[in-house]
Amino acid sequence: MDASAPRPRRFNALPATECTARLQLGKVGRVGWNTTDGPLVLPVTYVYRDGQIIFRTSPYGVLSELRNVRQVAFEIDDFDVVSRTGWSVMARGWAKAAVKPDELVALWNEPDPVPWAAGNRPLFIIISPEQVSGREIVG
Amino acid sequence: MDASAPRPRRFNALPATECTARLQLGKVGRVGWNTTDGPLVLPVTYVYRDGQIIFRTSPYGVLSELRNVRQVAFEIDDFDVVSRTGWSVMARGWAKAAVKPDELVALWNEPDPVPWAAGNRPLFIIISPEQVSGREIVG
Repeated sequence: MDASAPRPRRFNALPATECTARLQLGKVGRVGWNTTDGPLVLPVTYVYRDGQIIFRTSPYGVLSELRNVRQVAFEIDDFDVVSRTGWSVMARGWAKAAVKPDELVALWNEPDPVPWAAGNRPLFIIISPEQVSGREIVG
Repeated sequence: MDASAPRPRRFNALPATECTARLQLGKVGRVGWNTTDGPLVLPVTYVYRDGQIIFRTSPYGVLSELRNVRQVAFEIDDFDVVSRTGWSVMARGWAKAAVKPDELVALWNEPDPVPWAAGNRPLFIIISPEQVSGREIVG
């Protein structure tokens, strides 16, 4: 065996603490869910706080469908096409809108999440993960 | 109005030709679909050829479920957290495995897609989009 040959890249599972740490560091993720018209995957800017994924959206956009309780998958990742390495974390759980007055007051008092696009985006969608997993592809 | 103030960022729809061009340039995307256990979103390395999204996977992994005809959403994106700009493209359609002998011969004769991870990944999953849309968030 040639020790100088590049080692084959392989998948490793990421430990739960590492998945959580990456969710905390992330800024943009993708929400996937099933609509009557089939699956959708859309990016959102989010914050991860107290074990929940929180983002803001418009009450008139397609993401507002998540205000009703919906089963979702939330994904973050980072890849390097040159070294062909990278990682991803997926959180699976349930989305719903924040509606309780005290909850909304607390959310508006936090600096994050702030949507990148201008416009009125007063709907806070909160994803409560039931299962978080991640993997990396390393050389 | 202060002309030196930063203009508010806003969403623009991407034209269809631009969506296709970005699918052709992309290397990594995310497949979202609904399982009996809820939605999943997983990254794959892919190639876009003849209007189809093609990737390879193991017959024993979770992505192999797409060998049976499944409705999917495929998403690519790129974001810059400093300028708070970026774009995403979503292709919605149907996934299935390549099974016809002549189709498989043609696929194995192409240089792409090559999975990044080592291991036997002989299952070619082909997504035929019925609808492609994209948007960008610009300053």
